[in-house]
Formats: sequence, structure tokens, C-alpha cells
Amino acid sequence: MDGFSAPLLAALEDYAASGMVPMHMPGHKRNEALLGDALPWRLDVTEVEGFDNLHGAEGLLKAAMERAARLYGGKRSFFLVNGSTCGLLAAIRALTGRGDRILVARGCHRSVYHAMELNGLRPVYLMPPVDGASGVAGGIEPASVAAALAVHPDIRLCALTSPTYEGVVSDIRAIADILHARGVALLVDEAHGAHFLSPRFPESAVRLGADCVVHSLHKTLPSLTQTALLHVLTDRVDAQEIARQLSIFETSSPSYPLMASIDRCVGLMAKRGEELLAAFRARTDRFRARVRPMERLRVLEKADVFYALDPGKITLVTRGSSTSGYQLMDELRARGFELEMATPGYALALATLADGEDALDRLAGALLEIDRGLLAAPAEPIALPGPPRVELTIDAALALPGETVAVERAVGRIAQEYAWVYPPGAPLIAPGERVGEELPGWIARLRARTSSGQPGTLRVVTC
Amino acid sequence: MDGFSAPLLAALEDYAASGMVPMHMPGHKRNEALLGDALPWRLDVTEVEGFDNLHGAEGLLKAAMERAARLYGGKRSFFLVNGSTCGLLAAIRALTGRGDRILVARGCHRSVYHAMELNGLRPVYLMPPVDGASGVAGGIEPASVAAALAVHPDIRLCALTSPTYEGVVSDIRAIADILHARGVALLVDEAHGAHFLSPRFPESAVRLGADCVVHSLHKTLPSLTQTALLHVLTDRVDAQEIARQLSIFETSSPSYPLMASIDRCVGLMAKRGEELLAAFRARTDRFRARVRPMERLRVLEKADVFYALDPGKITLVTRGSSTSGYQLMDELRARGFELEMATPGYALALATLADGEDALDRLAGALLEIDRGLLAAPAEPIALPGPPRVELTIDAALALPGETVAVERAVGRIAQEYAWVYPPGAPLIAPGERVGEELPGWIARLRARTSSGQPGTLRVVTC
Repeated sequence: MDGFSAPLLAALEDYAASGMVPMHMPGHKRNEALLGDALPWRLDVTEVEGFDNLHGAEGLLKAAMERAARLYGGKRSFFLVNGSTCGLLAAIRALTGRGDRILVARGCHRSVYHAMELNGLRPVYLMPPVDGASGVAGGIEPASVAAALAVHPDIRLCALTSPTYEGVVSDIRAIADILHARGVALLVDEAHGAHFLSPRFPESAVRLGADCVVHSLHKTLPSLTQTALLHVLTDRVDAQEIARQLSIFETSSPSYPLMASIDRCVGLMAKRGEELLAAFRARTDRFRARVRPMERLRVLEKADVFYALDPGKITLVTRGSSTSGYQLMDELRARGFELEMATPGYALALATLADGEDALDRLAGALLEIDRGLLAAPAEPIALPGPPRVELTIDAALALPGETVAVERAVGRIAQEYAWVYPPGAPLIAPGERVGEELPGWIARLRARTSSGQPGTLRVVTC
Repeated sequence: MDGFSAPLLAALEDYAASGMVPMHMPGHKRNEALLGDALPWRLDVTEVEGFDNLHGAEGLLKAAMERAARLYGGKRSFFLVNGSTCGLLAAIRALTGRGDRILVARGCHRSVYHAMELNGLRPVYLMPPVDGASGVAGGIEPASVAAALAVHPDIRLCALTSPTYEGVVSDIRAIADILHARGVALLVDEAHGAHFLSPRFPESAVRLGADCVVHSLHKTLPSLTQTALLHVLTDRVDAQEIARQLSIFETSSPSYPLMASIDRCVGLMAKRGEELLAAFRARTDRFRARVRPMERLRVLEKADVFYALDPGKITLVTRGSSTSGYQLMDELRARGFELEMATPGYALALATLADGEDALDRLAGALLEIDRGLLAAPAEPIALPGPPRVELTIDAALALPGETVAVERAVGRIAQEYAWVYPPGAPLIAPGERVGEELPGWIARLRARTSSGQPGTLRVVTC
């Protein structure tokens, strides 16, 4: 380990070395003789004396969360050990009452839909424009937010994802100004933008007027999977109610290794963030320069419908070539590179500050080689699913009698389950929405999964 | 590592050694050169090819969950990485509709109260009898279940905790029979009884007629904190709906090290469970024999109001001596033993199969020594808080205007927050209940924490 600051990890190491006999949970009793050392038994304590309590922190966890708030500039930050999922559920429950109207980007993570189900919320959806050249969805346009508020003055909260899975950033400052003029709070799911901590990357929503921001740490920073942060940024958010909601959606036995990972990540970024992010940005620039000669493949670049793009997301557009995103992902796997995801028209590689020094150079080499074997091909016309026709709230639809039918026979009926495109976990249809004619084709084309897991079928409300 | 079966852990080790370049989440990229090796970076992958998907498992996670189902004898078992908390939320949401009536043991974990809040449930509480000699709450009496059903024929679900924090087991068979005769499902929070896998311990609820059982693995078995299982046991439970509810309450990015820990624990118990549990039981018997000569302290033993007791829980009763549970816990800490918890009248030590060979012998020695320094003292009369006076459902009370007052001034008003006794996380009062005269005394005596975290105050509904 280098000399960055990770007080929680250090305290856990010290405790493990103290020789105290554990007559308490967890039941593994740090017994490496029985259990081996592949998993962090040694650091896995519970709320023993001196180790504070995540739900009501007053000691070393409080101090650790204050360091996270200082790093991002929030009024208060919360450690999350159940992912951004629990942060989004808690924030939406804290910022809405039962049956309220909410303005939501259609591409939101499924936890936003689940929060709407739990609170019986009435959604108004923001549909992003699409970049015609790549098929990648753009940012949320401030004008569409203003238009929605004009039609629905009773909107209580706006929730949107920025950056998106593909790194597309929306104009948060403009959107926040429009919402705040009407007294509406803004929750930004910045799960994919926890590394926006340097002028070499887009500005974070925490500094652009968002009231509440959720960061996945494991996605783009070095922290263990399932770790995240929730930041309270303005007085529009009741931090005490956020804490209460988190105590609902987060285990009462949080993992200290996960929390130590968060603290370590915050310490690393506080101490070496600018240096590591600058080197990371330089590597991505070098990568983009190296692959510029490709003739059939191309790396997604700034377009009109993208307010900004995260340089860490490398979207490899296959549209117009003789391969697909799926095939490209498979070919790269065969050459030893595992990508993040693929669609018919592109595949996505995630670069971070923790990449091995030569990882991107090697990826560039593999892409140049693959590109040489490709031909030009006519591109399918681009389209994204249109706005949903919401007939019932999600919870109301789920409470009705239902039946499972072949997806072609579901057209014209009201859906009673989700069809998710996963990743990133956005729905083609949600319960309570009228099924359009194009849905069966979208489900097949985007390899969507229904929530019931029965391929080729959809659960619908019984008429 | 010994030769037990842990296929998921082995697959993760193999993958880490494979040399694949990760161009995907998590962002740490297994970079031990940057991050050190204190945390399990190497094993922390995401849903890459071959590693299945917890929410919709079809491959190696499905097989792992089937091994868990075989170990416990369930129809279907689910891995939980957000603790028993998410299992109880999911099960109650799957087994009730909005506004339903639920029969609940008052000592249930706070997640049961949170599930009631989420679904607007109307609770009927089961109050346990108390063991007069120790002050420990007893099991739920089958007769009290029958009486509640006679008064409230619309009860949809019964949720209770067995064993309790102190290891008190209820007569699940008799309770299940009474409920099933009325068509009511039984959910058992057996968080403290995951080790009931041997004739040397009480019988598990999974074999006694419960419809759904939740097990914390980290509490009494060797698994990392925050890991648990949910078992579906009968056709009264819709496993598909359980899966859907878990996708709400559990992160969409579950930790593979946590899941590997579950799989490893299941494999260890399948292969060596009987041997390890028999040796464990023998150590607890030896401990009890060794401390029998104590004159002032005593270890809790079977009493009329306990249907059975878990030998792994060592409840050290201080009542009738010149010390308290709190003082005893402090004195043992000074001698190098950290206990699980304390109350005014007893302290609790948790023994497990993973205890060091001499840990209990050394604990016995320390107790004998402490006991010699104690005097007899008059015991305070035993009482437990009486049944709550429920005026409103939890969610209805929380939706009203409220104010924070000194707890003495809250008497006679309707509470708008919880006062938790934690551990184990049971409430002295919940939102919607009329505050009784004895509450301020109980809050002080049991060191209860209010959910707002403001000592000496309680939030109440504004009249």
C-alpha cells in the first residue's frame, strides 16, 4: 500500500491484530485456520466498541462520511453498502409523498422505477433525443424539462441519470435552474460519474445545482462492487429523512470491508485524485489518437445531442460496418479483453484510473487488427422506443389480476411486468403501460429480459 | 483451505488467474499494485461471461443457490447480499397486499416494521411472556396465535422471530398448524438459527412447517457480514414474486466475494457440518459445566416460557448480583473478551463453530474470577413493555404533520418515530402508537435510541 489515508482500514487492521476474543457476530470469528484467507475475514467485524454504527454514526464512520462530503463538496454524504440502488430508493422516498407526480428520464435505473412502485408515484417521462450516427441516446434537454413542468405544475421531483451508461452528460446547471424556479428538487443518478473530480473530466452534478446526487464508487473508481455514496447538497433535502429511509433499504449489518473500501477510495482520491485522473485522461487521449485510423469502426465522439461526454467511456460504434456490437464484444473476448456491454450498433469499453499501464494500448492494437478485417455495410435505420403510454401507476397495475401471454398477443393490452434492457437496466415497458405494436421487435432486437424471466411472453393485466 | 466444496470461490480464483483484461466494471480493475491486497479486489468481478446474474440466475449462481436449497431442504433458496433485511422486506411484500392485516411478534427485527410501513399493513402484535428469573422474553405461544386469529379472521400473514437474539425458540410446528388451518402463511425470521443443521441443536423452522424462512449466515455460521439466505418452502409462497421483490431491495451490482462467502459456507456445512456442530456443541457443554460453580452469575437455562434454547447463545444473567449486564460486558472487555450485547439484567456471549479451541475455556475462567468478586443484591422487579396501543398504521402516522417534544411530554400523544432497542433492533414504540406513561422510563433503562437520533425527545403527530 502506498501512503494514502485510509483510517477505517487501518483501524480494522489494528483491531484484528489486538487479540480480542470475539464472543459476538460475525460467526466466522476471524478463524483463518478454518476458513483460509481468500476472503477478508480478518477485517470483517461488527458494531463492536469503537467501530461506530452506520445507521446513527457518531464516531469513526461519521468522520469517514465527513471526509467523503469534503471530497465532493456536499453538506452531508452517506456510505452505501447496497449500491446506488438503496440510495435512489431512499432519496425518492424522502423527496416524495405517496401518489406524487415525478419527472423521470426514461433511461433511469430500475431502482427509480421500483421507488415509483413503492410510493405509488405518477410518472412523467423525459425522452432523450438520439444521435443519428451512432444510435446512442443523448442527454436530457432542458427545454423538455421546462415543457413538462408547464404541462404538469404538480411535479414534485425530477430524477435523471447523468452521465448515462455510455457517458453522455446532460446540462445539469440549466435543468436545475429550471426546476428550482418552480421549487422542484433535482436528484441526479451520477452512478457512472463518481470520477468527475478533475477539470480533465466533465463537471460533477454536485457542483452544478443538483439537490441530491448518488455515486456508484465501484463503477468508475477503485472500490469494491456494491459500494456507493449519497450526497445531500441543498436544504431542499432533509438529511435526517434520507438517513431514515436508508435504514429501511440497507442491511442493519453493514459490511466493514465494504465500508473500508469506500473510505480507502475517498482517501485515495483526496490525496492522489488529480494525479491519477490526469494520467488516466492522458491514456484515453493516446488511445483515441491510436485508433483514429480505423476505417470501419469508430469511437463515439461529441455530437449535438451530447452536452458532454465522459472520456473514460469508450463506445465502439460498429454501425456502418460488417460487424455488430455483440460480435465485436465476442471477438475482443477471444483476444483476451472483456468489455462492459454491447448493443446491435455498438460495444462499450470502460476505462478507469486503475487500468494497467498498457491495457488501452493493447486494446487499440486489437481494434486496429479487427478493423482491417471488416467491410462497410449499410446501417439499419436508427430508432429508439417512443414515449410510453402510461395508463396506470406501476403499483396499481401490479395489484390487478393478470395473465401471461405471448408477447405478440400482448400488443394493445396493459403490461403487468417490466421488460428490461440490462445493462444498463432501463425498461422497454413498465407495468401500467399500454403495449405498442413495436414492442415484440424491440424485445428481440435489444435482447430484453422480462421480469418474470419467461422468454417470449409478457404478463398483462386481465381485462 | 481444506477440501470442502466452494465452486464459486474456485471459479473466481481461476478467472483472476486467467489474465483477461477487464474493460468493464468494477473500476478497480483488480489492480493490487495500486490498491494493496487487504481487500478482495482479485475476486471482485461483475456479471461477466460465465459468471451468471443474481437477479435471473441461470448458470453458476443458480447451481450455488440450488446447493443451498438442498442443504436446508427448501424448494428454492435465494442468496442475499443485503442481509436478512432485504429478505424480510421481500417476503412480506410478496405475501401481503397493501393495507392487509399482519400478525407480528412484537420483538421482530426493524425490517419487519419497515415492510409494514411500505405496504401500509395493519399490525396485530404477539407479546411474548417473560421469564421471571432472568427477564428474558420467552417464545411466542401457540395459544396467543390462535387467539389473535379468532379476533382478526382477516390476518393474511404471520411473521415471527425464532430463535430470538437470546436463543429462545418458539414451537413453530404448533404455530404453523394453527395458521395453516386458517390458510395463513408463516414467515419465520430464523436469522439467529442458520446453524440449526444438526440434532445437537434445535430443529430448524425449515423442517417444521414454516412457509418462508430467512437465515443470516454471518450471525452464527462462518460467512461474511451482510450475507443471508431466503428459503421458499411451500406452495403458499410465489417464488417468482419473491425474486421480483428481491430485485427491488437488493443492489443490481451484487458483490461476488459476498456471494462466494455464502457458497463457501454452504459447501462447508454440507461437507463438514455435522462434525463441526458436534464439536461446537461439546465445547458449549464443557463451558456450561465449568461455570456451574458460579455463585452470583448464572448462565440462562431452559425455563417454562422457552420452548427450546439454542446452546450457542450464552446468556450471562447478572440479576440478583451486585453487577449489571453492562458492567459485566465492560469487565470482560477489559480482560480481552468482546461480548455481543448487554441489558440491565444480563449480557450475551455468542459462541459458534468457528470459535478458537480454547476461547470458551478462557471465557469460563474469566467468569469464575469475576464471579468471586460479586455480592448478592436484591433484583429489581421484572417487567417488559406492555402491548402497544395502535391508533394508526405506521405509514399513515408518518404522512401527518409532526413535531419533536421532550419524551416526557410525548405521553398520551401518537408517536411519529421509533424508539429502538438495538441490538436486537426491536422497538419500544413505533409510529402510530399512543405513548404510554412508562415509555420515558423504558427508553432510559434500555438505552433505546430514537430514529431521529435526538436523545431525550420523541417526534409525535401534531394534534
